[in-house]
Amino acid sequence: MNPEDVRLARAALTRLMEPSDLPGMAMIRVLGAWESMRVIAGHVRIGASREAAVAELLSSEAGIRWGGLAEALDRWRPRLPDLAPGRDLRVIRRLGGGLLIPEDPDWPAGVDDLGLAAPVGLWFRGPARLPRFQDCISVVGARDSSEYGESVTAAICHRLAAQGKTVLSGGAYGIDAAAHRAALSGAGPREPGGAGPTEPSAPATVAVMAGGLDRFYPAGNEGLLRQIAEQDVLIAEVPPGTNPTRYRFLQRNRLIAALSAATVVVEARWRSGALSTAHHAAGLGRQLGAVPGSVYAAGSAGCHRLLRESAAVCVTDADEVLELASPMTVRLPERAAPVAVYDGLSTEDLLLLDALPMRTGSSVEKLSTVAGLGTPAVQAGLGRLELLGLARRSDRGWARAKSGSG
Amino acid sequence: MNPEDVRLARAALTRLMEPSDLPGMAMIRVLGAWESMRVIAGHVRIGASREAAVAELLSSEAGIRWGGLAEALDRWRPRLPDLAPGRDLRVIRRLGGGLLIPEDPDWPAGVDDLGLAAPVGLWFRGPARLPRFQDCISVVGARDSSEYGESVTAAICHRLAAQGKTVLSGGAYGIDAAAHRAALSGAGPREPGGAGPTEPSAPATVAVMAGGLDRFYPAGNEGLLRQIAEQDVLIAEVPPGTNPTRYRFLQRNRLIAALSAATVVVEARWRSGALSTAHHAAGLGRQLGAVPGSVYAAGSAGCHRLLRESAAVCVTDADEVLELASPMTVRLPERAAPVAVYDGLSTEDLLLLDALPMRTGSSVEKLSTVAGLGTPAVQAGLGRLELLGLARRSDRGWARAKSGSG
Repeated sequence: MNPEDVRLARAALTRLMEPSDLPGMAMIRVLGAWESMRVIAGHVRIGASREAAVAELLSSEAGIRWGGLAEALDRWRPRLPDLAPGRDLRVIRRLGGGLLIPEDPDWPAGVDDLGLAAPVGLWFRGPARLPRFQDCISVVGARDSSEYGESVTAAICHRLAAQGKTVLSGGAYGIDAAAHRAALSGAGPREPGGAGPTEPSAPATVAVMAGGLDRFYPAGNEGLLRQIAEQDVLIAEVPPGTNPTRYRFLQRNRLIAALSAATVVVEARWRSGALSTAHHAAGLGRQLGAVPGSVYAAGSAGCHRLLRESAAVCVTDADEVLELASPMTVRLPERAAPVAVYDGLSTEDLLLLDALPMRTGSSVEKLSTVAGLGTPAVQAGLGRLELLGLARRSDRGWARAKSGSG
Repeated sequence: MNPEDVRLARAALTRLMEPSDLPGMAMIRVLGAWESMRVIAGHVRIGASREAAVAELLSSEAGIRWGGLAEALDRWRPRLPDLAPGRDLRVIRRLGGGLLIPEDPDWPAGVDDLGLAAPVGLWFRGPARLPRFQDCISVVGARDSSEYGESVTAAICHRLAAQGKTVLSGGAYGIDAAAHRAALSGAGPREPGGAGPTEPSAPATVAVMAGGLDRFYPAGNEGLLRQIAEQDVLIAEVPPGTNPTRYRFLQRNRLIAALSAATVVVEARWRSGALSTAHHAAGLGRQLGAVPGSVYAAGSAGCHRLLRESAAVCVTDADEVLELASPMTVRLPERAAPVAVYDGLSTEDLLLLDALPMRTGSSVEKLSTVAGLGTPAVQAGLGRLELLGLARRSDRGWARAKSGSG
């Protein structure tokens, strides 16, 4: 069948069905998109055997009882009159985008981990394509972010983009916006359109939206979202002209989680939408990170909750996020830390160093008593400590060397 | 054998042997304290079979090769001339304390989890005794603590003591001092000496010291340590007159971990003594908690490291510490959080609520299209939302009820 007909059918289905309409998804899986549309439009009957297959799939994959086609048609048919998939596709193309469908080679495999809840299609707007799954890292958080949260987000996302990673977020106020902005700055200036139509550039950031891509929502982020649409890419599973509703925001979160190898929550209240993204990520077996903060900050309570109650890993900088996203390949740089003079000393030498007087000298016999070491051990140890510059011999006996006082 | 003779022998051994002198501990385990002293003093010979038993125990329990008695005697004998266990016991008794030995009924069983590294005895000073193991919680941290760390420590430890728990710490500057002070204030005023000699009171706090209990160290904490010695109890495994050395500080940390059911690190740098206490606790299978903080605070880097690299649980208040210490019995109070009006709504009702206009009214047919629900589902849902006060019927149709705007 002509792939563009399938695209047309899936475009229509993204308007007829709300995200995660599992009975609908099961029908599409069994009948295919084109045939499903013909059934919904009433041009063909589903037939007992095919309906049985849908019911079977629905119960086996989602544990849901198939309520019968009639019940489902009650949901879908009221929207049939508004259907204009050809127009929707023209609109999105005019905006420099399109509709990505599972039949396309560059369909992001990650979302198929959602099983029946995988999207019917992904509307996109912008010159870029989604990069390799392993290069996608989601950074999400509260809308009412703090200066602390925004500053940590900026530091992490600027570095991630500079390292060639793609930062996914939800395009909302607060942490989301800080993440997108820092990623854009981290990737540096790129000619709009990337490396040209034949070979799109890897995006610095991707905004996964809850509403149609013909509008920029929220209005306060219009400039930012417009820049992402011009340089990188916006994504949504709902067609142009669709309002972002509470339900669609919640569903959108599962896409952010599924599209990325790791999800990092920077700031979230005890109850927060960012936590729903985190739980989706954990449920999908994705790497999950949470940024700690003050125990007095309401905006960190959700992150601390994740650290307590989920598999979330504590992440404090971009290196730890990179390690989270590809644990096999990334090595954390060793932390710079003052090395104490006594590091690596044996127990005996540590006892002896403790026993050495700072100023006045001490005899081997006295040191043997103070340190609780035998005379031969003291003599051997003094030699080692002298070599290390920790002990010095004077006419008044053995003492701590100046450098050893640290 | 007379228990006071055993006490005398163990008092002597705590001066002859440094903490965790494993060959010495193995010998004491095989020969007993009194006989070990006679061997060290040269009054009896250890004998081949007993020495073989010591070597066997040392290798099986600690994987260490027994170097022969002669080598060990080289360590211990230089201190024989200074030995005066009777005087040490008189000194500690004059200070209102004593020496607790494994043969005593109130010996804290927790330290025996240290195996061969268990202390020979525990010198104590103060009217109180160690409470039940499950009631002991260690709160430790950096000496160079921040205002943040001290304030979190105070909030946690005040509450723990008020709940009848005993807060253990190391009596050092910074977090340790803050923990002891807050525990004393949390327990409130108690008559010195507790409930009388026959039945000592459960201490609000216990300071586990690295040096002898005849002196208060560090000097800046003298007032605090004196108060603990008068109301509660100080503990050390080294006899009166012993200097706190670096080695003894490191060994002291294992006692703090072993004596308590849970250890909480409030603030610690990337490298910190508090981390050694934490690793001892984890190694002993004790519950371990770490308090999060700003990713910019060097004083929290060690806590975040524990959260990343160890089994440490993220704890932010006293309730979470109490749950950590007795996971079976404590239930966390449900966090007070604003309950959204749409909580608990079914997917269909959520879709319908999203579709309801704020001001103008809407028809059932229109709602069916907007929400993507069948007419029967819309009618049933409107009834539920009206009951919940989320939807209202007007002459212009259905709309969101005022209360539903939240």
